[in-house]
Amino acid sequence: MSKFSDPAANLATLIACPSVTPAEGGALAALEAMLKPLGFRIERPVFSDEGTPDIENLYAKLGDQGPHLMFAGHTDVVPVGNETDWTHPPFSAAIADGMMYGRGAVDMKGGIACFIAAVARQMETHGRPKGSVSLLITGDEEGPAINGTDKLLRWAAERGETWDASIVGEPTNPDRLGDTIKIGRRGSISARLTVHGKQGHAAYPHLADNPVPGMVTLLEALLSQPIDAGTTEFQPTNLEVTSVDVGNRATNVIPAAASAIFNIRFNDSWSADSLKTHIAEQLAKTARERHLRPYGHDDIRYELEWLGRPSPVFLTRDERLIETLSAAVTQITKTTPKLSTSGGTSDARFIKDYCPVVEFGLVGQTMHMVDERVALADLETLTQIYGLFIANWFERQ
Amino acid sequence: MSKFSDPAANLATLIACPSVTPAEGGALAALEAMLKPLGFRIERPVFSDEGTPDIENLYAKLGDQGPHLMFAGHTDVVPVGNETDWTHPPFSAAIADGMMYGRGAVDMKGGIACFIAAVARQMETHGRPKGSVSLLITGDEEGPAINGTDKLLRWAAERGETWDASIVGEPTNPDRLGDTIKIGRRGSISARLTVHGKQGHAAYPHLADNPVPGMVTLLEALLSQPIDAGTTEFQPTNLEVTSVDVGNRATNVIPAAASAIFNIRFNDSWSADSLKTHIAEQLAKTARERHLRPYGHDDIRYELEWLGRPSPVFLTRDERLIETLSAAVTQITKTTPKLSTSGGTSDARFIKDYCPVVEFGLVGQTMHMVDERVALADLETLTQIYGLFIANWFERQ
Repeated sequence: MSKFSDPAANLATLIACPSVTPAEGGALAALEAMLKPLGFRIERPVFSDEGTPDIENLYAKLGDQGPHLMFAGHTDVVPVGNETDWTHPPFSAAIADGMMYGRGAVDMKGGIACFIAAVARQMETHGRPKGSVSLLITGDEEGPAINGTDKLLRWAAERGETWDASIVGEPTNPDRLGDTIKIGRRGSISARLTVHGKQGHAAYPHLADNPVPGMVTLLEALLSQPIDAGTTEFQPTNLEVTSVDVGNRATNVIPAAASAIFNIRFNDSWSADSLKTHIAEQLAKTARERHLRPYGHDDIRYELEWLGRPSPVFLTRDERLIETLSAAVTQITKTTPKLSTSGGTSDARFIKDYCPVVEFGLVGQTMHMVDERVALADLETLTQIYGLFIANWFERQ
Repeated sequence: MSKFSDPAANLATLIACPSVTPAEGGALAALEAMLKPLGFRIERPVFSDEGTPDIENLYAKLGDQGPHLMFAGHTDVVPVGNETDWTHPPFSAAIADGMMYGRGAVDMKGGIACFIAAVARQMETHGRPKGSVSLLITGDEEGPAINGTDKLLRWAAERGETWDASIVGEPTNPDRLGDTIKIGRRGSISARLTVHGKQGHAAYPHLADNPVPGMVTLLEALLSQPIDAGTTEFQPTNLEVTSVDVGNRATNVIPAAASAIFNIRFNDSWSADSLKTHIAEQLAKTARERHLRPYGHDDIRYELEWLGRPSPVFLTRDERLIETLSAAVTQITKTTPKLSTSGGTSDARFIKDYCPVVEFGLVGQTMHMVDERVALADLETLTQIYGLFIANWFERQ
């Protein structure tokens, strides 16, 4: 085998780098050391933003003509938690019972290790691909994602880069390798709801205006009915109330205000804007019509504030890209993968503005957990899938 | 007029003492200086408790045989708030437009000033009452009330003191002097409700268990139905949710638990224990039967913890005491007072275990506010009411 064509060896090198966000930890340097000998041109832009740590990123490109396939991912990993809870140290890449242990084993140093091995093997057997292959790798996916993929794409686009398709190497398979390809993601928006009342003594509620019954009424309205029934490609839109806070420590005092935070994961029935309008209308209607208020029957007085930038919903419509990947998965694993849009947001939400994007990687079961680990057999299988996908994708352009 | 028979002069002396809880501020010393010349025997026990400030109290007694009438009250006052907001300095007892200004003017240095003036006048016109009169005055009514009336009663009872009736000089009149006598008080209990869930990612709600929908369901059940319809003597029992707290700052995280605090003011349909049982049963039934939970349909997992010592509900059934006071109010003010059990708890909740107790004092409108003040005319009227009440109460024994 040629150099870097063994995914387990590549992964062991990467796991040994303690690249917990925002630390580079040697992981991008290790990537550079693998990709340079394969002929990739490497750039390592660092991005900054006020109030966030500087982040190192990597863009590696092989070839200088189209078509252009981009592999996207991240070398940063989440914290290890309580290190003594691990069966093997989290940066040791220890192998036991056919599994390699380590933080990032599946999310997603493993995916990167397999893609590099696949490229190395392809070049050995078929030479350089008839087009360009690039790796767009950030160190800020598990963090605030401000100095990562979003800026890296803009940086590359400003230098004239264009891509025809992208594959993100996140762990997309819930149970076994080959069961799921992601072809889109739900959107995500969050809001703060504040209900205003009037402070007073708990013994004289008619002189005060407790905001809690109004809050309970509004939350009940948000939670009691499904927002939609789902679409052909997407799960139903889902709302989670992630916090409710009053912060009143005096049991004889009626508080002046109550606030709640909620997050909505929405499907392609909605844009962020149409969903905001829908929620605002639902709250306004409830505030006028429904009351859990023994004293006074005015409208519930509330404020709705949308937080941060929404993550858009998207669905990849490049059938050839999806079929090429799906066929490679089926051929290697003898499983027909499910085409899914479930789960959290990913950096694919940034990439979809530049080119069609799909996501496929390892099995996610142990991601973010103690004893994160990957089957050595899965590393080999994913390398074969990526290899077949690369070959067929260039073949079919 | 004899010494201390002018309620306005007595009150000016007391207002000048800055006795914000827990400070004695010279107020009890001033009382001692008024009561000693009238023939009262004075004791000034100090009570302590770990974690609370030491508190000075006063017990003054005139006479040594029955029947025994006790006047109860407090010289401590609530903080002045923003002193520059006051029209006249809060400890100046300034008089303007027939009103005396000052912290404690109505709550309740004014009531004490009138009672002392009434006793002074009675002694001048009728000599010593045919029995005993005592003043049981604490410096810890506006504070935690741990080193105040409760301990002072026990301290006196241990020394052999017994009482036949008590009048508390709190400001009982909402609008004008004579409109309301309090003949009982609602009870008060508080509880913390905690709903347990399972932390997780907001994009994977089926792998987590959000406690907020369960909390909304339980609170909705507590708030949607009146607990009772009130009784002959009491308002309906009322529940106020005074806080709801989750404290989760991450919008992509489903929290592990949510907690709420509620306070119930309850009438004589209930004892603290029977009400606790009722609420516990209502929550248990709701947790089993009702769900705002799209994922999973297990019972809502919650804990109910009762906080602190409940204030018991009580109703004074001494018709002679009530009628004697009511007749005095009617004779002086030409108003038939309402017999009320509304409002917050008071130190009468401790006294009711020793003897029948009623409450009557000044007009409460400005209590606890900036520019707390009392009409000089009201001071004179209340002194006359107390005087007539004292004379008739001893007459009718």
